[in-house]
Amino acid sequence: MTTLSTQIQLASRPVGWPTHDDFRRVVVELEPLAPGEVRVVNEFISVDPYMRGRMNDVRSYTPPYALDATMTGGAIGRVTESESTDVPVGAVVSHQLGWRDVAQGDASGFRVVPELPGVPLSAYLGILGMTGLTAYVGLLEIAHLAEGDTVFISGAAGAVGTAAGQIARLRGASRVIGSAGTDEKVALLTEKYGYDAAFNYRSGPVRELLAAAAPDGIDVYFDNVGGDHLEAALDAFSDGGRAALCGAIANYNSDETPAGPDNMSNIVTRGLTLRGFTVGNYLEHFPAFQHDMAEWFAAGSIVFDETVVDGIDNSVDAFLGLMRGENTGKMVVRTAV
Amino acid sequence: MTTLSTQIQLASRPVGWPTHDDFRRVVVELEPLAPGEVRVVNEFISVDPYMRGRMNDVRSYTPPYALDATMTGGAIGRVTESESTDVPVGAVVSHQLGWRDVAQGDASGFRVVPELPGVPLSAYLGILGMTGLTAYVGLLEIAHLAEGDTVFISGAAGAVGTAAGQIARLRGASRVIGSAGTDEKVALLTEKYGYDAAFNYRSGPVRELLAAAAPDGIDVYFDNVGGDHLEAALDAFSDGGRAALCGAIANYNSDETPAGPDNMSNIVTRGLTLRGFTVGNYLEHFPAFQHDMAEWFAAGSIVFDETVVDGIDNSVDAFLGLMRGENTGKMVVRTAV
Repeated sequence: MTTLSTQIQLASRPVGWPTHDDFRRVVVELEPLAPGEVRVVNEFISVDPYMRGRMNDVRSYTPPYALDATMTGGAIGRVTESESTDVPVGAVVSHQLGWRDVAQGDASGFRVVPELPGVPLSAYLGILGMTGLTAYVGLLEIAHLAEGDTVFISGAAGAVGTAAGQIARLRGASRVIGSAGTDEKVALLTEKYGYDAAFNYRSGPVRELLAAAAPDGIDVYFDNVGGDHLEAALDAFSDGGRAALCGAIANYNSDETPAGPDNMSNIVTRGLTLRGFTVGNYLEHFPAFQHDMAEWFAAGSIVFDETVVDGIDNSVDAFLGLMRGENTGKMVVRTAV
Repeated sequence: MTTLSTQIQLASRPVGWPTHDDFRRVVVELEPLAPGEVRVVNEFISVDPYMRGRMNDVRSYTPPYALDATMTGGAIGRVTESESTDVPVGAVVSHQLGWRDVAQGDASGFRVVPELPGVPLSAYLGILGMTGLTAYVGLLEIAHLAEGDTVFISGAAGAVGTAAGQIARLRGASRVIGSAGTDEKVALLTEKYGYDAAFNYRSGPVRELLAAAAPDGIDVYFDNVGGDHLEAALDAFSDGGRAALCGAIANYNSDETPAGPDNMSNIVTRGLTLRGFTVGNYLEHFPAFQHDMAEWFAAGSIVFDETVVDGIDNSVDAFLGLMRGENTGKMVVRTAV
């Protein structure tokens, strides 16, 4: 019996916005398992903003995606065959083999997930996985969130943003402000995610919108957007403010060189710290994160949204939708349909 | 007997480059000393780039200079009369009363200087004063200089830059690179101040000049300039690089809004830290700085230059010359002529 795996490959490097032509669907016949290997039928695969950067052939924190190779990234599934005693048949595992419906490889590349009661598997790609860890590390390790801080989070209705707002609150922020790109998302921020104030960044200059939402200034900025949002934050910062720079989705699909903030001198005069990070360098915080998250889930203190797209063949559409901001919360593709 | 004090006041707020019309010379008749007060005949007064910022009426780390009031700032002189037992006649003192030839006030505003043998008093306004402390704090506390680091310093022939290059070397940097605005200054950096490489930033795009001088990248950037220098540093940084942002003289006299670096996304992808600081918030490091500097001076490990302008009446010219980069090392005005 042969097993087929449907996979999505990068066929060409996008210039500006990716299109379907930049990707290719292939069906691969899998080899029988070698000793130590496992085979996993995926349930969900993750699409994330950072993937856009990896489609370019430039130096970055992760190597660029290879052309004509399957898109890698977070995924979760169940083991259906195993030649490893560490990772038995039936185990739920997460891995980084990405956009394919069936994955296989050495067991060391698969991590058995300790399931929490009542939590869907997709959440381990989001709020309980790298997405949640990104929010946690960014606020606590990078921006040194302190009790009483006023926190501004851009792209607040996204997967990282919705996690960050709640973590900020649970860790003592006195005021949490978010930006999002539609009125529906803005309403969700204050009504569901506990933000004190939120604004639609399409409704005016971000500088003015943030100044109105944070009349007494901000202490911490969690940046998912870059561009005019970072500029607005630099204006709003109180002395000693700290920014965790996580992403700049505003620029990912631009083929023009973006101008930086025009108020960089505030960094000197207000004694600000801007610090960029990528979660892959902070995996040692995963146990502390898991511990805190399990407590918060048990206490009912965490809510989350997912945008689920069905079918491996729709992975590119899911990714493009994410780039356009069509998701609320974590965007995942359900491969087991 | 009356005592007269010649003082330079700010008469109007400069727009763009300051002119002589923005200042006013006054001669003030000093009151007899009150109990607890001292009178000091200044030997040197300090002119510094940060003073340009204080001439504007904007929020900053120090309040703006008041109009029609005497310019304040660092100065050093000898006590000629004293109604204080703490600060006796004959003591050498530093203070912040700025651009005047005779200063007086409560003794608490005057700090007795522990003189090192063979060091001119002007040095306590520079390498042994706030200027040296700025370099020391910026490298060690802000940029966390580590042994083996490659360090880039902009405005390297200035007072802070010449101190920073030597401190970096003394604290274990493996390669120190500097930029300056004339070929003479560039030569001085490598021939006198121990820089491994230096370039004239007027001789080409800073990005290319820095890339050529630091083919293996930089770990630490000490920024005195901002603008294209910061942009070049962001391109040259190795992963985990750290910038101490000390000043941005490139922008001080601009009445246009400067564009920020076009490569801010490197902050995220390379995990960089940009941190602004002003030395006034780090005065607790003065004892450690004094200790290290005394040792380095005793060992003959520190050299320094000064550009001395004679006469309180030439203070404005000294300041304008500083803004134009006419100084090498610390710019001071000798008032005792």
